Amino acid sequence: MTFTLHPKLDNGSSLVYETDLYQVRLKDDQRFLWLQLIPKRENVEELFDLPFTEASSLFAEIYRLSALLKKLTAADRINVAWLGNVVSQFHIHIVVRTHNDACWPNPIWGQGAPVPYEDFQATLVGLQKILFSS
Amino acid sequence: MTFTLHPKLDNGSSLVYETDLYQVRLKDDQRFLWLQLIPKRENVEELFDLPFTEASSLFAEIYRLSALLKKLTAADRINVAWLGNVVSQFHIHIVVRTHNDACWPNPIWGQGAPVPYEDFQATLVGLQKILFSS
Repeated sequence: MTFTLHPKLDNGSSLVYETDLYQVRLKDDQRFLWLQLIPKRENVEELFDLPFTEASSLFAEIYRLSALLKKLTAADRINVAWLGNVVSQFHIHIVVRTHNDACWPNPIWGQGAPVPYEDFQATLVGLQKILFSS
Repeated sequence: MTFTLHPKLDNGSSLVYETDLYQVRLKDDQRFLWLQLIPKRENVEELFDLPFTEASSLFAEIYRLSALLKKLTAADRINVAWLGNVVSQFHIHIVVRTHNDACWPNPIWGQGAPVPYEDFQATLVGLQKILFSS
């Protein structure tokens, strides 16, 4: 099965883990712990462009990952959204929010420029360790 | 089972339909066709506060309703989100977005004041007719 990640989703993010169905990527923006779930399917723009069974698998991962992030981080809220107003390829945002983050209580999208991590590769490895040892 | 709708969710919205598990409400804001799915459970703030089976039922309704709204309206995108940064009671936004709407391409939350419908009751009845005759 072919799959092409839109350059705007690829740029400024790295793969954390993947399955046959989706990638989970970390945005290089230290303002928030910001993940994106992206189905590895061509021509998917809306949730309902996916077969229901595949969409349900994505949902199960949202549920699992949200709970895990709440448990492992100092999250006050887990924000989940799929918008696609700017990049049409379907992608789901899962964002750890805290009361003192850069945008609280507003949504994070379109708010200022990303602030890259000092060492994105190390951050990525650290996140992988945390997620997979839990 | 008891269920109390937060006054901030109740205010400026009306019930479109409900099941044992959730309410679907319409926001009185003519800038967007803006629905909210709210589980009829106490003390639910995050998705994972719901048992997975109940969360999955909500998800099935998101999937169904998103596809239906895309089919029945002039939607360019269907925005779906749960944030809860302002009102902690768990609620899911489903919003019909168009390229010429008041906020495009930005998210709608926290953007300006709602613009009430001229006749909210008539709009609600019209929406119910459209949703249930399709």
